[in-house]
Amino acid sequence: MSLDDAAQKPHDRLAAALAEDMEAVNLMIRQRMASEHAPRIPQVTAHLIEAGGKRLRPMLVLAAARLLGYAGPFHVHLAATVEFIHTATLLHDDVVDESERRRGRPTANLLWDNKSSVLVGDYLFARAFQLMVEPANLRVLDILANASATIAEGEVLQLTAAQDLATTEEIYLKVVRGKTAALFSAATESGAEIAGATPEQVAALFTYGDALGIAFQIVDDLLDYGGSAAAIGKNTGDDFRERKLTLPVIKAVAKADAEERAFWVRVIEKGQQTDGDLKQAMALMAKHGAMDAARDEALAWATKAQQALEVLPDHPLRGMLSDLAAYVVARIN
Amino acid sequence: MSLDDAAQKPHDRLAAALAEDMEAVNLMIRQRMASEHAPRIPQVTAHLIEAGGKRLRPMLVLAAARLLGYAGPFHVHLAATVEFIHTATLLHDDVVDESERRRGRPTANLLWDNKSSVLVGDYLFARAFQLMVEPANLRVLDILANASATIAEGEVLQLTAAQDLATTEEIYLKVVRGKTAALFSAATESGAEIAGATPEQVAALFTYGDALGIAFQIVDDLLDYGGSAAAIGKNTGDDFRERKLTLPVIKAVAKADAEERAFWVRVIEKGQQTDGDLKQAMALMAKHGAMDAARDEALAWATKAQQALEVLPDHPLRGMLSDLAAYVVARIN
Repeated sequence: MSLDDAAQKPHDRLAAALAEDMEAVNLMIRQRMASEHAPRIPQVTAHLIEAGGKRLRPMLVLAAARLLGYAGPFHVHLAATVEFIHTATLLHDDVVDESERRRGRPTANLLWDNKSSVLVGDYLFARAFQLMVEPANLRVLDILANASATIAEGEVLQLTAAQDLATTEEIYLKVVRGKTAALFSAATESGAEIAGATPEQVAALFTYGDALGIAFQIVDDLLDYGGSAAAIGKNTGDDFRERKLTLPVIKAVAKADAEERAFWVRVIEKGQQTDGDLKQAMALMAKHGAMDAARDEALAWATKAQQALEVLPDHPLRGMLSDLAAYVVARIN
Repeated sequence: MSLDDAAQKPHDRLAAALAEDMEAVNLMIRQRMASEHAPRIPQVTAHLIEAGGKRLRPMLVLAAARLLGYAGPFHVHLAATVEFIHTATLLHDDVVDESERRRGRPTANLLWDNKSSVLVGDYLFARAFQLMVEPANLRVLDILANASATIAEGEVLQLTAAQDLATTEEIYLKVVRGKTAALFSAATESGAEIAGATPEQVAALFTYGDALGIAFQIVDDLLDYGGSAAAIGKNTGDDFRERKLTLPVIKAVAKADAEERAFWVRVIEKGQQTDGDLKQAMALMAKHGAMDAARDEALAWATKAQQALEVLPDHPLRGMLSDLAAYVVARIN
């Protein structure tokens, strides 16, 4: 690895190594989001897809397939599939959360309307489904069908768990698997499966994607409370204002005395927040070591992701995936 | 056929002939809509599924499979699949249309919220997808994936075509296939396919479902303008007030002179409706024979559905499907 390579983020190195495949994926995405009859569909979809997300999920499919020596055409279909599922969930999430900005631009529900976001999201799910059928691989279909159900269940669970102080770490983990890890693990697992990997390799890539996704989400939740100096540029306190039960809050609530509990009931369950409450919440999380404990968990998940890769063949892509897991948690270290 | 049989509606005779299968379908629906972790899901779903829809779509799957001699277990999965897809689209439709009542009860978006309807709809789509993968039949997956895309595209097309006087009969037909016929034809076609039918039989059952669905929707649109004496009990004028371009309106607009066109622009495009406009719209449709022409088209589609059945084996279920097509249009005769 040259100095130049080392200076690049793992994500950019993956993008460079998979550039040709990603071009095919982007072409397929553009072709499949077209609709001859309903021009509203490509308008809404292009607004989101071409806003330049990192395409992390398709890259995970491609990396898993390529590092196991896949030479067929179908990893491209699966990569486009996971990006479509991801985009559909973003469209529906923005309706559910009444969001106004995404990737620095106004959301589709704001530019058009909620109706368009709901129906175009459904269209992308259907297109994802058509794409994933094409490789004619029943194991891959199982993986993606089960991931879809986990995602949808996690979304509903998040809705009902919001503002509920009884939310446990177990429930938090289910929500996190639904909103993030299920599609990461479906990406790496289906990439391995299409490559005809051994059951051990498939399991390893499932574990990698699952652990990477969980680490990623815990870090995201930590950064919302400041996390570290690296958090500059990210707004802190959004989750607090939306009264979300994320890991550091759950840990602090679990150790709260009666007076602290009354504070959490007021700001999270009743939503009666005033100036200084965010600062007080962060002080309570610090007092009980909730931030450190959550950070330790994120690091443990990242280590688990890296260790899972050890059974896989030696390959430059394996190194980049390992570096990616380290990079995800480096944001809080 | 006894006199008693003849007096029953074709739908009830199908339900009686398929009673055992339908029991298995209802059991599977209850099992698969459960969610251990998110109790909101079965609440919302049960509200809609147990409100007692006619279960027409699952019966079409079962009838197609059984009349072709299918003896396996998987027609039940496919029947539950189409009911889940149907229920998911109803949940999303009610959000899009801001509906308040469905099947005589308050809608889920009213009882809970739009968020729950969007996310539980997504969950049902995902569960449908899991169910349809289980028979491990790639042709069936193709059929259902393509139907899902047609449904979603039709919904978006309906959204953008609403209130647009330039809507053609061709566009109307695409919308109708999306909102009704695509799931009917996917039901009958997938039932035939799982039974290992010949390509000719599969094509015949596709045509039957497609033509039945189109006839069904045209009749529904006619009844919204009165249709006939049989329409008693149905509110007339809903589509007019919502400024929908249904077949009789499209036909009347096509023959409008300048003054009549100004009327349509005002009431449909601009939505400036006053007392007497519905009566005037119906007078214009009568003047240009638009109701009769639409009725003739519905009858032609019903006949096409019946004729498609002729290549299938002689079987009591075939007779019931034929009677069902006749019954659908009898409402306007």
